[in-house]
Amino acid sequence: MNEKILELLKSKDYSALKALLAGENPQDIASAITKLDEEQIPIVFRVLPKELAAEAFVEMDPDGQELLIKSFSDVQLKQLFDELYLDDTVDIIEEMPANVVKRILRSTDLETRCQINELLHYPEDSAGSIMTTEYVTLRPAMTVEEAILRIRRTGIDKETVYTCYVTSSDSILLGVITVKDLLVANDDAIVGDIMDTHVIYAETNQDKENVAREMAKYDFLAIPVVDNEKRLVGIVTFDDAIDVIEDEATEDIEKMAAILPSDKPYLKTGVLDTWKKRIPWLLLLMISATFTGQIITNFESALAGSVALTAFIPMLMDTGGNSGSQASVTIIRGLALQEINMKDILNILWKELRVSLLCGVSLACANFAKIMLVDNLVFHNSVSVPIAAVVCITLVVVVFCAKLVGSTLPILAKRIGFDPAVMASPFITTIVDAISLLVYFNIAKLMITNL
Amino acid sequence: MNEKILELLKSKDYSALKALLAGENPQDIASAITKLDEEQIPIVFRVLPKELAAEAFVEMDPDGQELLIKSFSDVQLKQLFDELYLDDTVDIIEEMPANVVKRILRSTDLETRCQINELLHYPEDSAGSIMTTEYVTLRPAMTVEEAILRIRRTGIDKETVYTCYVTSSDSILLGVITVKDLLVANDDAIVGDIMDTHVIYAETNQDKENVAREMAKYDFLAIPVVDNEKRLVGIVTFDDAIDVIEDEATEDIEKMAAILPSDKPYLKTGVLDTWKKRIPWLLLLMISATFTGQIITNFESALAGSVALTAFIPMLMDTGGNSGSQASVTIIRGLALQEINMKDILNILWKELRVSLLCGVSLACANFAKIMLVDNLVFHNSVSVPIAAVVCITLVVVVFCAKLVGSTLPILAKRIGFDPAVMASPFITTIVDAISLLVYFNIAKLMITNL
Repeated sequence: MNEKILELLKSKDYSALKALLAGENPQDIASAITKLDEEQIPIVFRVLPKELAAEAFVEMDPDGQELLIKSFSDVQLKQLFDELYLDDTVDIIEEMPANVVKRILRSTDLETRCQINELLHYPEDSAGSIMTTEYVTLRPAMTVEEAILRIRRTGIDKETVYTCYVTSSDSILLGVITVKDLLVANDDAIVGDIMDTHVIYAETNQDKENVAREMAKYDFLAIPVVDNEKRLVGIVTFDDAIDVIEDEATEDIEKMAAILPSDKPYLKTGVLDTWKKRIPWLLLLMISATFTGQIITNFESALAGSVALTAFIPMLMDTGGNSGSQASVTIIRGLALQEINMKDILNILWKELRVSLLCGVSLACANFAKIMLVDNLVFHNSVSVPIAAVVCITLVVVVFCAKLVGSTLPILAKRIGFDPAVMASPFITTIVDAISLLVYFNIAKLMITNL
Repeated sequence: MNEKILELLKSKDYSALKALLAGENPQDIASAITKLDEEQIPIVFRVLPKELAAEAFVEMDPDGQELLIKSFSDVQLKQLFDELYLDDTVDIIEEMPANVVKRILRSTDLETRCQINELLHYPEDSAGSIMTTEYVTLRPAMTVEEAILRIRRTGIDKETVYTCYVTSSDSILLGVITVKDLLVANDDAIVGDIMDTHVIYAETNQDKENVAREMAKYDFLAIPVVDNEKRLVGIVTFDDAIDVIEDEATEDIEKMAAILPSDKPYLKTGVLDTWKKRIPWLLLLMISATFTGQIITNFESALAGSVALTAFIPMLMDTGGNSGSQASVTIIRGLALQEINMKDILNILWKELRVSLLCGVSLACANFAKIMLVDNLVFHNSVSVPIAAVVCITLVVVVFCAKLVGSTLPILAKRIGFDPAVMASPFITTIVDAISLLVYFNIAKLMITNL
């Protein structure tokens, strides 16, 4: 599409450009526009039909949006923001610098401005911050025919019409009814009789991840959001829920890899910002490795006496780290998906205990065979049987400790109100390293008398 | 809810039980039923209204479903499966043992059985495997009034009616139209005139993750699936897309932690199965640590001369591993979300190069200060300045190498058709460990003359 746009821009054939773009999806138009030169963007944007222009605008990145807003006259700005859904307007305002925000707010009418301000005041991760205030409400006394008529009259600028909310005159949420229910019902049935009164709703301050998972669980297109007097104040739609679920997965993955979460895509983040997201954990983990170093220093004499012992340190540390992170990551994801609860902790411990013994013993056997066949016969390292035994016994103990630490720490973190995702590989690895070395050297001292 | 159900079961007050359950959501009923005793489940299930029973059945876990199916007469089984959507039936069949599958297939009519068999034959991760064949089709010549009438007549047992598909008489997909479009249009408008002909569709063999992301990108409620002659054969609905997105995130997280992906929740997986998912990578990674051990053995004399050098091995290995996995995990997630493409590789390398220098230098400075102040003054380890210098220079080189390896391996893996997620922390750590030690010992030999 991009080449065609450039061609038509060059030949100034704007009517052909208009025809070309009118058939495209807003998402594709947005990504095509972003690739144009700065001075071409407003030209292309102006040939778009009003509604499509608004939809494409929402899909652009903040830099492109800012550029466009600055190129607009006040009238054009007003036209654009009249077309936008309120939740999208709020999302855009949150990304813009103060002077642009002022222009946007000036271009909206008083009522909209009040609603925007209200939405802006919900905490960042709350249901309120992602809800929209545009939805269809019905009254319980309406007939199906009246309800359908109301949807047909008012639905045109609502984000979703497929789930309608039945409220009392003071906005208390009484029930929900889907357009499908209305369409398959008789014209003269009463909304209050056929609506679903067992409504599952979210509260404005509820965590948005929570709300999104609830929606995924119940397969909801939209979920109503109520204030603390059970008055309907907004809805969260499925497209925002999908975004929340994707973002939360990304955030967890970043935390698990010892990165501070960022809300910009990788290629859009500057070098300095990337550094800022990565260096804190690297520093902290580096400093905490002091303990591991200290353990080695304390066993200096043992190591000087047998360098063969040193050669197995990396293998023991890595295997411990990997075993621990397998357990921790499984538990962290289970907690995030709400498959695992606090009360399962004994269950989990009992299971990890058995898994860790199975893993530890199989690794120890494989390792003993490897030392005897590969290290001694192929590489001629002459590792003595006692040292091989020390390494293998350590393996069993290390895998056991690693699995226990890996499975309990995330749960404990959650218990005391921390994010379990932080208790993933790098953190566990540092703890398990120290355990591995302590176990290793003590077993070595115990079993090899001349150390 | 559970206590109430138990109470009513005890007093055999089935009509009160029926009234209680009729107002609940199928998901909640399913989870309540699962907690009951085996002989209570069929009793509770039988008091549910037909449609609700089917919806709750779909939400139960395979063990509960199997138990129920076995307790049903053939007539009851037929009634149940008549209520189910075809894609749910196929999902259930995939989980059941052969003898149960036979009973289910016997209870469906010939046409349904053919459709089930067809759906069962799509590859496991394809769009075809998650699509449903129940949707509303319209013809281009219909008026809006006729279209709405058709939806009202046929929509009752379709999974979604909100997106309708306009097809020619030989099932070729011509356009889509939403119920919202129909509701806000005039009664006598022609479907062919107002439908959207720029249809985004999936193909039966397309990867389901791909399709789900496409739907998330375009905010689709449903996406049509066509065969290779562009005939409409099914649709994928948003609830299945959300499940795919969650499952794929879980799978990637598992792979990143060196676990073979499993499709059962943690608490439902047996000890032996958990072991089987975890041991292959542990074994492989343990065996590959042979190289790191070999490097240490080769530098035996250097290490015997200065145990202080050994004390920094864990810190260097861990920092290298953490730096590498930060880069690899960022790239892996970027690739999964399609934010990063093959052609960005030079961009990424140039960026990681600068980030790695920033990280490396800041870590080296912090580490030098730490060695001088903490190790020497607090712990009295007497680390000489040359050794501190060797450690800090090694840090810079190791972080540099780790970031480059971490950012390029996932992209190369994708290039040659491997799953990038496998190139995460554990794998990168093993490679970076070997690099760290080689760099460390060689710099030490170069800078400290008496080694």
